[in-house]
Amino acid sequence: MNNLTVFNDHDLQFMMQAIALAERGRFTTTPNPNVGCVIVKDNRIIGTGYHRQAGQPHAEVYALQQAGALAKNATAYVTLEPCSHFGRTPPCANALIDAGISRVVVAMQDPNPQVSGQGIARLRAAGIRVDIGLCAEAAEQLNRAFFKRMRTGLPYVQLKLAASLDGKIAMASGESKWITSSQARQDVQRFRAQASAILSTHVTVKKDNASLTVRYDELPSEIQTIYPESTLRQPIRIIIDRQNQLTGDENLFHQSGEIWIVSQTQRQIMPINCQQLLIPDQPNQINLQLLLKACAKRQMNSLWVEAGAHLAGALIEQDLVDELIVYYAPKLLGHNAQDLAVLPHLTLLADAPQFAYHSVTMVGNDLRCILHRQP
Amino acid sequence: MNNLTVFNDHDLQFMMQAIALAERGRFTTTPNPNVGCVIVKDNRIIGTGYHRQAGQPHAEVYALQQAGALAKNATAYVTLEPCSHFGRTPPCANALIDAGISRVVVAMQDPNPQVSGQGIARLRAAGIRVDIGLCAEAAEQLNRAFFKRMRTGLPYVQLKLAASLDGKIAMASGESKWITSSQARQDVQRFRAQASAILSTHVTVKKDNASLTVRYDELPSEIQTIYPESTLRQPIRIIIDRQNQLTGDENLFHQSGEIWIVSQTQRQIMPINCQQLLIPDQPNQINLQLLLKACAKRQMNSLWVEAGAHLAGALIEQDLVDELIVYYAPKLLGHNAQDLAVLPHLTLLADAPQFAYHSVTMVGNDLRCILHRQP
Repeated sequence: MNNLTVFNDHDLQFMMQAIALAERGRFTTTPNPNVGCVIVKDNRIIGTGYHRQAGQPHAEVYALQQAGALAKNATAYVTLEPCSHFGRTPPCANALIDAGISRVVVAMQDPNPQVSGQGIARLRAAGIRVDIGLCAEAAEQLNRAFFKRMRTGLPYVQLKLAASLDGKIAMASGESKWITSSQARQDVQRFRAQASAILSTHVTVKKDNASLTVRYDELPSEIQTIYPESTLRQPIRIIIDRQNQLTGDENLFHQSGEIWIVSQTQRQIMPINCQQLLIPDQPNQINLQLLLKACAKRQMNSLWVEAGAHLAGALIEQDLVDELIVYYAPKLLGHNAQDLAVLPHLTLLADAPQFAYHSVTMVGNDLRCILHRQP
Repeated sequence: MNNLTVFNDHDLQFMMQAIALAERGRFTTTPNPNVGCVIVKDNRIIGTGYHRQAGQPHAEVYALQQAGALAKNATAYVTLEPCSHFGRTPPCANALIDAGISRVVVAMQDPNPQVSGQGIARLRAAGIRVDIGLCAEAAEQLNRAFFKRMRTGLPYVQLKLAASLDGKIAMASGESKWITSSQARQDVQRFRAQASAILSTHVTVKKDNASLTVRYDELPSEIQTIYPESTLRQPIRIIIDRQNQLTGDENLFHQSGEIWIVSQTQRQIMPINCQQLLIPDQPNQINLQLLLKACAKRQMNSLWVEAGAHLAGALIEQDLVDELIVYYAPKLLGHNAQDLAVLPHLTLLADAPQFAYHSVTMVGNDLRCILHRQP
């Protein structure tokens, strides 16, 4: 920015409301970002809106509808730069101009190359004052998955782990039901529900006979309030099954929702709702970089990974993990138990993959640590 | 208690002050408990005191000295039942009676068999109203190590661990300097300073050439304020060295403070400030139960353990650990790295040693989890 914009307390308050509104869409807007909008005149809110679902109107449209004729000379607070292109809906920049809005406060520019800066330019060309950068950090955090995809062509990868205090995920025998508490397992549901897709392996699917779906009745009631069951979205389930070892009879296939099977050779019979993604370029392993690129290309913003120590380790070693979500049960399983992450190439402490604690919360009797990748 | 005592806000406030005073003695009173006393008349504090060091006056004596003649008909708040026996100082119950105190509020009865209930009985026999049980939980926590020794004949064992997110304490090569941050290592100093003794092994002493002392200049300034360097106490260092492999040239022996060497055969040459504890009853291992009993018998309330995965695991498997203090560095070391705890006998998840989170705190970039043993 060339000019330093000074925002006042009212600006801050309204933008924070816009961000809170935007968050309500976090279960349903994928592949679109979460956006909230608050329209204000004489320090009073005259319209609010947020983006609910791809294909449905953007936040600004709902807020302008509510404001009606009052929108003339009002200020709009938007968590993301208004769009300037015709997608599935007409450009919001035009709608704001047409409604006679006189000032637009934007939390941050849209990193989407189809928009970036053009929405703001169009508003300014129409004589609207545009102030940028209020609550930029919160707005960035709100859509970190969408932005990751826009900027890098890769999805935002969240790796979920559940371990004992000594970092073990199963006994030597394989026994692992249950290391963490039912509250921790339920907590996973809220993360699954927000992910574009869930990534796992045939081993995990077979071991736990996991369906890897969102179970609506296990979502916390405060989420159910803003996320009616009628709008329930099942994240795409992506299962690495290199040699097509899944029969199609597993629980996974008996739940509704799209499934991708990632293999190196063509499956003979394809279960219903399934499609296959062939990534044959590397012998004996799936090229994870290619897999993630394919996910991003198909507009997946975020991947929620539930898998064993091999996939977890491979993602970490290849620096493909953005966020770790680790549930620590307050018990010890000892040296014979199974390790959290297989990192075959790591020998020097200085090369250890480094994260930073983002949040730490008790979930039942377990501790949930969220960490972000450090460069 | 037969009668339910109702305490008011003033009572609560004064007892909390007494507990805060008691805590100031936590670096120096071992083997005695921490005790604080506040004397109040007409809702105004007229005397305060806390126990500073074994052999020095008890909390009540300092508080009574300050109150002087005003103590007549005043109320005394004491964090622990006043003593009734002649130890190194005369009984405090008598001092309270002689000063004309009319009411004594006691947080909890003394579990020390030489006192338990007799101090209260003596006060009541002298016509003083005694109310028991205010802030009992905080008072119990304050002296949990002393009480453990009194009740069980074993010291309160705190096991310190420093690990990666995946519970590893060193690379396969043995490289472990440093997994955790300097802040975490400095944080350890405050725990060492409060322990009666530090327990380690010849392996750890040799590996890190550790001196296992309290380094006054590394204590946080808020501790230095209440703990002048002139009163610095070095916890006894107890080193398991079954086969007398320490030469006496290690750093450990060049620092002031008492050292115990725990062995199965007689040492030929004994370094200065050292004594030997022979526990030969089991072949190829030290009977840890006997070692801890010997510590308690020598009036050690608490043991701070800094050791490797074998001693850590043995203490855990034998259910001798009361508290875990785990520093988690936000990095992953992988499956080849060294484990936190060797638990050779554990095969079933249901038998996993169980703890409960007591506190979770950021220390620099690391997370410090304190857990208490669950039955």
